[in-house]
Amino acid sequence: MELDGEGRAVVRPLLTDLYQATMALGYWRAGRACEAAEFELFFRHCPFGGSFALAAGLRDCLCFLRSFRLQDADVQFLASVLPPDTDPGFFEHLRALDCSGVTVRALPEGSLAFPGVPLLQVSGPLLLVQLLETPLLCLVSYASLVATNAARLRLIAGPDKRLLEMGLRRAQGPDGGFTASIYSYLGGFNSSSNTLAGQLRGVPMLAPASSEGPTVDLTASVNLWLKRVCTYLGLEVQEPHPGERAAFVAYALAFPRAFQGLLDSYSVRRSGLPNFLAVALALGELGYRAVGVRLDSGDLLQQAQEIRGIFRTVGAQFQVPWLESVPIAVSNNIDEEGLARLAQKDSEVNVIGIGTSVVTCPKQPSMGCVYKLVSVGGQPRMKLTEDPAKQTLPGSKAAFRFLGSDGSFLLDLLQLAEEPPPKAGQELKVWPQGAQEPCTVKPAQVEPLLRLCLQQGQLCRPLPSLDESRTFAQQSLSRLNPAHKQLQNPTVYPVALSEKLRALVDSLSAGGPL
Amino acid sequence: MELDGEGRAVVRPLLTDLYQATMALGYWRAGRACEAAEFELFFRHCPFGGSFALAAGLRDCLCFLRSFRLQDADVQFLASVLPPDTDPGFFEHLRALDCSGVTVRALPEGSLAFPGVPLLQVSGPLLLVQLLETPLLCLVSYASLVATNAARLRLIAGPDKRLLEMGLRRAQGPDGGFTASIYSYLGGFNSSSNTLAGQLRGVPMLAPASSEGPTVDLTASVNLWLKRVCTYLGLEVQEPHPGERAAFVAYALAFPRAFQGLLDSYSVRRSGLPNFLAVALALGELGYRAVGVRLDSGDLLQQAQEIRGIFRTVGAQFQVPWLESVPIAVSNNIDEEGLARLAQKDSEVNVIGIGTSVVTCPKQPSMGCVYKLVSVGGQPRMKLTEDPAKQTLPGSKAAFRFLGSDGSFLLDLLQLAEEPPPKAGQELKVWPQGAQEPCTVKPAQVEPLLRLCLQQGQLCRPLPSLDESRTFAQQSLSRLNPAHKQLQNPTVYPVALSEKLRALVDSLSAGGPL
Repeated sequence: MELDGEGRAVVRPLLTDLYQATMALGYWRAGRACEAAEFELFFRHCPFGGSFALAAGLRDCLCFLRSFRLQDADVQFLASVLPPDTDPGFFEHLRALDCSGVTVRALPEGSLAFPGVPLLQVSGPLLLVQLLETPLLCLVSYASLVATNAARLRLIAGPDKRLLEMGLRRAQGPDGGFTASIYSYLGGFNSSSNTLAGQLRGVPMLAPASSEGPTVDLTASVNLWLKRVCTYLGLEVQEPHPGERAAFVAYALAFPRAFQGLLDSYSVRRSGLPNFLAVALALGELGYRAVGVRLDSGDLLQQAQEIRGIFRTVGAQFQVPWLESVPIAVSNNIDEEGLARLAQKDSEVNVIGIGTSVVTCPKQPSMGCVYKLVSVGGQPRMKLTEDPAKQTLPGSKAAFRFLGSDGSFLLDLLQLAEEPPPKAGQELKVWPQGAQEPCTVKPAQVEPLLRLCLQQGQLCRPLPSLDESRTFAQQSLSRLNPAHKQLQNPTVYPVALSEKLRALVDSLSAGGPL
Repeated sequence: MELDGEGRAVVRPLLTDLYQATMALGYWRAGRACEAAEFELFFRHCPFGGSFALAAGLRDCLCFLRSFRLQDADVQFLASVLPPDTDPGFFEHLRALDCSGVTVRALPEGSLAFPGVPLLQVSGPLLLVQLLETPLLCLVSYASLVATNAARLRLIAGPDKRLLEMGLRRAQGPDGGFTASIYSYLGGFNSSSNTLAGQLRGVPMLAPASSEGPTVDLTASVNLWLKRVCTYLGLEVQEPHPGERAAFVAYALAFPRAFQGLLDSYSVRRSGLPNFLAVALALGELGYRAVGVRLDSGDLLQQAQEIRGIFRTVGAQFQVPWLESVPIAVSNNIDEEGLARLAQKDSEVNVIGIGTSVVTCPKQPSMGCVYKLVSVGGQPRMKLTEDPAKQTLPGSKAAFRFLGSDGSFLLDLLQLAEEPPPKAGQELKVWPQGAQEPCTVKPAQVEPLLRLCLQQGQLCRPLPSLDESRTFAQQSLSRLNPAHKQLQNPTVYPVALSEKLRALVDSLSAGGPL
C-alpha cells in the first residue's frame, strides 16, 4: 500500500469491477456517455445489528477522485479484455477522463449515518460516475464499518478506559491494517500500535517516555527487593523465574522511565508479579516509576483485581504510594462481550488492547453499502423490483436532521433537492420509511446533513483533521438517544421522506419500473 | 494501494507495530542488534475448523524485503515517538538497515501448510528481523486465509463449476480487495471481476467476447419473438416488462456476441426470462448466441432448474439447440452452505459469483499466524509457558513431507536443520505433535518442504507465476487424503518431530523456560 504525501491510499482507477467498464462501453455505444447523472452511496441496514453507523472514508474518496486518471497502460489493459472490435473512440474517451466534471456532496467524516441517507451524492457524466462505483464503495464501506465498530466498543468501554488498536498483524492485508488504525481512532479508540498510521495520519502512539538509563547496578537492588517482596507475599525466592526477571531488568535498563512488564509469560502470581515488583521497586528507589503491567491470557478481570490488591498492600507495606495506581493493561482476543466484562463498574483494568475484533469486524465483516443511480438527464430514476427492500429512492435529494429542544436527534428527513429546506419550529408532515401513515414533527432545530465537498472537481473547503472528525463523531454520538445506542435490539432511528419525495416514489411506482 | 511494476503492493517498513521499534531499541541498548537470529512464521490452528491451509503471500513478502529501507522521514518519525534521549547511533543504525543480511526459506506459494510447520524461516541480524515481524505477518496471514477459503469453496463446488470472485466492493479496504482477487484465484477460483488484479497479476477476467453490432433493426425482431415466446409460455405479451426488455436490447446492440441478461430485476418467470428469450432468439437469427443469464435473488437452485427446463423446451420448440446449454450464473451472498446446495448433483447452475464470503472470510476473518524466535547467537530458543499451546519449537529446522507409495501425503516431519534428511524406504521413529508416544513410519517418498528463496538479500530463483502456483495448489490438494479435506470435523493431518528435535524440546523444558 503506497500513500500520497498526506498519507492517503493511492487507489488506481482500475481497482474496479470489469462490469463497470462493460457498462461504460454500453453507455458509450448508446451515445449516453456524457448524460448528466447522479448516484447515491448509502446502506440499507446498520452494521452489527445496531441502529447507527459512523460515516467515514470521505477523505480517501476525495483523494481518489482528484487524482482519478486512467494511464495509457490502464486503457491498454481494458482494450485487451474488452471486445477487439471496440470503437477506438471509446478508449480515447477513457484516456481523457478526469473528475473535473464531478460534484460530490457528502456526510462529513464522522457523522452519524442511518439507512437510506446518502453518505455520498456523486454527480457528473454518466459513463464516468458509473466507473467510480466500485472504488468508492470499497473506500467508504470498510472505513465506515471499522469506525462504527470502534464506536460500539467505545460505548461499551465507557469514557475512561484507554482503548489501544493493535490489530495490524491480524488485518485483511496491509491497507486493511492501515485503514483500521485510522478509523478505529476516529470511532473512539485512544491510540494505535501501527506506526505508519502515526506517521502519516497522526494517530497517537503509546510510546515509552524516555530511555535515560540508571547509573547504578540495578541487578543487586532487584535481588534485594525480590527477597523483601517474596517474604511479604509468602513465596520462595526461587519461585519467580530468573529468565523473566532478567528480561525485565534489561527492559528497565533500556527504558527506566517507561518500564512495564508482561506478567503472564510463566505464572502471574508466582513469577511475573513478584519479578515486576522487584524491578519496579528497585527502579523506584532511583526515582523512576513503572508505567504499567500487561496481561495477555487467563481471566483478565479477576487477575487485574488481584494485582491491584497486591499493588495496594505492597505499596502500603513499603511506603510507595504510586504503586497503587500503576496502570493495568490487558489484551487477548477481546470482543464486545469480553470488553463489557472488563468495563464493569469495579474493574481495575485501565488499558485495553484490541486487535482482531476491531480490525476484522468478525460480527459483520462487510458493511454492504450500495451505489445507485437516482437521476439521469435531469430525470429522477428509481429501481423498482418485486423485492421492496431493494427499491431505491428517486431524484436528487437533500437531507436534514431534526433536533429536539434539548439538542437530541429526532429524525433524519430526505426530501427533493428542489424543495425549500424545512424550518425550525414549523410543524411538518413526513413519512417515516416503512410506515404506512405519515406523522407530524416540529423540530426545535434543523441541521442540513450533506455538505458540498467537491464542485466540478475542485475541493470546496479544507478537510477537517482526523482529530476534528473524531471529536465530531463523539459529540454526535452524545446527542443520540440512548435507545438508539443500545448495541443489541436498539430502537430504530427514524428516517423519513418528505411528502413530495413520497409522492414521487408513489407516482414512479404506479407507472411501473423505469 | 500503490503497486510496483510487477503489481506487488509496496509495503513501507513503518507498517509495523511500535512495539517492534521499542524492541529494536532494547536490543540496540543491550548491544544485541547484530546477533544472528532466526524467526519462524507459522500458525497453530488451521482456519475455518479445517485440517489444512494453503501458504500464500510469499511473493509479496520477498518484494517487501528486497525494497526494505527506512527513509529519512520514517526514522524522523520514530525519533519523534521514541524517548528524546535515545542514542543517535540507534537512528543511524536504522537508516542504514536493509535486507542484504537476511535469508529466507519458505513453503512455496500454494503449498499445503499444517500447524507448526513454518511458512517462512527468516534469519538475519536480531534487530532487523524483529522489525520485520508485523509486516510479514500482515502479508502472509490474509493471503493464506483467502487462498484457503477459496480452496474450501472449490472443494465444495467440485471441479466443473466456474467460480467468479466479485468481492472488491465488500473487501476490507482497497488492498483487501486486491489481495483477495489474487489469492482466491490461487486457491481455485476461475476468475475475478477486479480489473486491477487482471492488469497487474494476470487473474483471468470474464469479459465480453466481441461487440460488433447487428445491422438490422433488432427491436422489431425482438417483438416478434416475444409474441411467440409468450404464446408458448402461456403469458400475456404485456406481462414482460418493457423497460427491462429495452435494457436487454441496448445490451445486445452493444455486445451482440456477449449478450447476457440479469433475469430477476422484476420477475424471472413473467418478465426476465421471456424478455431474455425474445432478445436471445432475435440475436440467434443473426448468428449470435447469447452467452448467459444471471440470477441475483431468490432460490437460485430451483430457479436454475426451471430456467434450464424452459431453455430445453423452448430450444426444441423453435429448433435452436444451443439454447439448452446457455450458461446460468448465480450470485447473492453465497457462503459454504449455499454453495454446497448449488453444487449438488443435478444442479443446472454453471457459474457462481461469490463476493463477501470469499473476500472477508466471515467464518474466521483472521488467520492467527505468529512469528517466533527459534534461535539467537546460534543457540536454540524456545518459549515455555504454563500454556503448552503457546510453546514454540526451538532451533533452526528443516521440514519434510512423507508420501505413501500412491503419492498421497502421510505426514510432515520437523527436524533440526543439522540432521541428515530422512530417506525414502527407511523406517523412522517420529513423535507426532501432541502424542505421548512415538510412532514409526516408512515413507515411500520424501519431499523437502522449505525452499531457499532469499539468500543474504538476493533472490535465489525466479518466482513461480500465479498460474503455476495455482496449479501446484490444486495438485497438492489432490494428493491429500479426503479425510483431511473434510470441511467439518476433518481428521487432523499429522505433523511430527524427529527424535532429536523432541529431545531438544525435552531438555529445554526440563531446564526451565529460557
